[in-house]
Amino acid sequence: MRAKDLIASMTKKAAAPQVSAPAATPMISLDPPSGTRDFFPEDMRYKTWLFDSFRKAASSFGFQEYDAPVLENEELYKRKAGEEITDQMYNFVDKEGAKVTLRPEMTPTLVRMVMSRMRMAGEAVQMTDVLPLKWFSVPQCWRFETTQRGRKREHYQWNCDIIGVKEATAELELLAATVYFFESLGITAADVGIKVNSRKIMGAALKQAGISDDSFPKVCVIVDKIDKIGAAEVTKLLTSGELQFDEATAAKVVAVVSKDFKLEDHVELEGVPELQKLLALSEKAGIRDWLVFDPSVVRGLAYYTGIVWEAFDRKGVLRAIAGGGRYDALFSLYGSPKPVPCAGFGFGDCVIMELLKERNLLPNFSRSVDFVVAAYPGSYAEALNVARELRKAGSTVDMYLEDAKKVGNVFKFADKVGARMMAFVAPGELDKGMVRIKDLRGGGEGQRIEKDVPLDDLSNYQRYF
Amino acid sequence: MRAKDLIASMTKKAAAPQVSAPAATPMISLDPPSGTRDFFPEDMRYKTWLFDSFRKAASSFGFQEYDAPVLENEELYKRKAGEEITDQMYNFVDKEGAKVTLRPEMTPTLVRMVMSRMRMAGEAVQMTDVLPLKWFSVPQCWRFETTQRGRKREHYQWNCDIIGVKEATAELELLAATVYFFESLGITAADVGIKVNSRKIMGAALKQAGISDDSFPKVCVIVDKIDKIGAAEVTKLLTSGELQFDEATAAKVVAVVSKDFKLEDHVELEGVPELQKLLALSEKAGIRDWLVFDPSVVRGLAYYTGIVWEAFDRKGVLRAIAGGGRYDALFSLYGSPKPVPCAGFGFGDCVIMELLKERNLLPNFSRSVDFVVAAYPGSYAEALNVARELRKAGSTVDMYLEDAKKVGNVFKFADKVGARMMAFVAPGELDKGMVRIKDLRGGGEGQRIEKDVPLDDLSNYQRYF
Repeated sequence: MRAKDLIASMTKKAAAPQVSAPAATPMISLDPPSGTRDFFPEDMRYKTWLFDSFRKAASSFGFQEYDAPVLENEELYKRKAGEEITDQMYNFVDKEGAKVTLRPEMTPTLVRMVMSRMRMAGEAVQMTDVLPLKWFSVPQCWRFETTQRGRKREHYQWNCDIIGVKEATAELELLAATVYFFESLGITAADVGIKVNSRKIMGAALKQAGISDDSFPKVCVIVDKIDKIGAAEVTKLLTSGELQFDEATAAKVVAVVSKDFKLEDHVELEGVPELQKLLALSEKAGIRDWLVFDPSVVRGLAYYTGIVWEAFDRKGVLRAIAGGGRYDALFSLYGSPKPVPCAGFGFGDCVIMELLKERNLLPNFSRSVDFVVAAYPGSYAEALNVARELRKAGSTVDMYLEDAKKVGNVFKFADKVGARMMAFVAPGELDKGMVRIKDLRGGGEGQRIEKDVPLDDLSNYQRYF
Repeated sequence: MRAKDLIASMTKKAAAPQVSAPAATPMISLDPPSGTRDFFPEDMRYKTWLFDSFRKAASSFGFQEYDAPVLENEELYKRKAGEEITDQMYNFVDKEGAKVTLRPEMTPTLVRMVMSRMRMAGEAVQMTDVLPLKWFSVPQCWRFETTQRGRKREHYQWNCDIIGVKEATAELELLAATVYFFESLGITAADVGIKVNSRKIMGAALKQAGISDDSFPKVCVIVDKIDKIGAAEVTKLLTSGELQFDEATAAKVVAVVSKDFKLEDHVELEGVPELQKLLALSEKAGIRDWLVFDPSVVRGLAYYTGIVWEAFDRKGVLRAIAGGGRYDALFSLYGSPKPVPCAGFGFGDCVIMELLKERNLLPNFSRSVDFVVAAYPGSYAEALNVARELRKAGSTVDMYLEDAKKVGNVFKFADKVGARMMAFVAPGELDKGMVRIKDLRGGGEGQRIEKDVPLDDLSNYQRYF
């Protein structure tokens, strides 16, 4: 069976499925659902590498990995309203009437799990037995966005969170972990910066203007758009609709997120000294070069309450690489009788890959295997034994799954799978208790080195070369 | 804030959420959706270990990892009807009207991806450039089963498949990979067996009785239940309903799946010589002890066409551990103009964990970190630098995220996070350019070994002990 014929007819069918071919079964759609990705092995190697790098950075900082079902209770997201997210859910009613959704983000699940952990711990434990927690995860998250903007409907997002620490030492630890990750991939502070700000500054400005706390998340969600829609449009949104701020208040809100806002001019405002302390400490943490105070950054999530940040490409070409902040009110929103301080970040898998590609920092992962084992006709059983011995000794081994009638085909196969070595199992050597092993990369100038290795010493094959 | 108070009120609320407490926010549900699992860090360590073992076994055999979205087109499963699976889907219509579902199994996705790969390869390539393929994955799969039977609605399933190999060498390779995995965890052929059979035997018997091919998958799905419902009930199902077999044909069907059916008595039947050859070759592959010919095993999936198998606990307590087989017709069913030979297996994450627990083969994974770094009041910035240097040198480091006012609390914290070493950063040593490092596990008899290590030689701290 040749691919040529197979593919020719497949392609034809796929292009014109309506043409009546009485006996033929119509072709299924070969694409995954709209806005989602398949990971073929050559893509998967990059995914594995990236995720391992996430895990390594998190482990270096003592974060522990957790996971949860991709399906969550819809209530978790409906509760924290005020964001686009609730309109963009992959939600449905299951066969028993439960309202569920593919998770749009991980933080609500994390809070649910930690609340559950506290309940499980029972009355006898001290808070310090449960908190502080440093947890991380690399969940897949789903949003039903319009695909025409070129954005996927799913992505993976590295999440690191610190639960139970009030001080900005938590934010600093999270920022340091982010920088550690960048540096581990060869990305420098010349490539990427991290804009930091504190929503407490906005909170203080609103308090001064006599605005109620309820408006705070709404103001932040509006102000988050200032880079896109401009100050005039933000003012319009603040003075109309739900909020109905007077012009003076709106001006005050716009002032604290304007580029002219300097920390040193407003040390009296809540949030400013804390942010200054964070920036000072960041020197010794070795991450000061990465940080940029940017008063316009407030992040789009409604639940942030304090310091917020956003990692960005200094060339200004790519979307935000990662974002995070403090969210001290989410436990309370979910029914915790006392507030629990939290900070965390989310770091998607797509933009970072674009950046690495653009900066030529992606390693070259080609397919590879230590051995191909092939059998001359009649020697397949012995070849199975050879493969077993090599695997037991720790080698990765691909079998040539038919009799090696044509040696040229075996070499082609070995080349395709990226084999370093080949074991040819044939009666000539077997009769002497040996196997012929070829080093496919050694030799040079077309010369292949080959040695006969005793069947009972295969685990030491390297000694024979 | 003490956990005692927090939890006391939480527990009360959770137990009686109806009690009116006017100002309090009602507690969200702390459980994941029905039939699903959270992985807390202590569970996650086992999941990671198990998945790494799956990956290691697959890589030893030259399988390449792939992945795909957990959401799939419903059509993939509707097309291959005749099974319970289509009634148990987590399916829904998305916001654009597409019929999608959480995948109940991985094989249809694999076939879709390989068909797509063939189409992408274009007309110029030979079939041998694309096939054979050995791919693996560890996807999460979803079935809407009734939870009362204690079965989860999601599980992870290690999948290994070989596409493009007609010979039973493919099945043998898959069986050998399964055994390699078992052995890598310390499981022996005394713990687990693998029942093998071939559906071709049933096919031959049906052909002899003049039954059309269309009935084949239906017969297999019915006969799969023989262990549960008995031969009489199977006969009843074969002679009634859709099939309406006569008694003689039904008797023949039951005969080929009865425990009395011996391979050596039926060498004339299609499928028997192939199975005998597989069993013979399995000797040299080192897996003969694991295999048991069992004519009653036909597996529940409609699409199997040849050799099938099922790994089982020899004590007979647990459900099937893994299952697989040949499915040469699935490409055609999905619209491939020519058949493509395939074989593969699925290996769930739940039953194997029960087995490992029962046989005391689970490693003990306790939480651990190389260092805790703590700062006396005023030395936090320096402590950040110490943590950074230790991490750069490859250590995992957890920061004590507040000033270390009470040394006892720092030791409690170090104990909680499983730290091996502790770095105390304090002015006394800093003035001399040193950091005090304590080995928390050395010494013995309550004696802790501690040394002062120069700030500029932290990466070599081990030399000072």
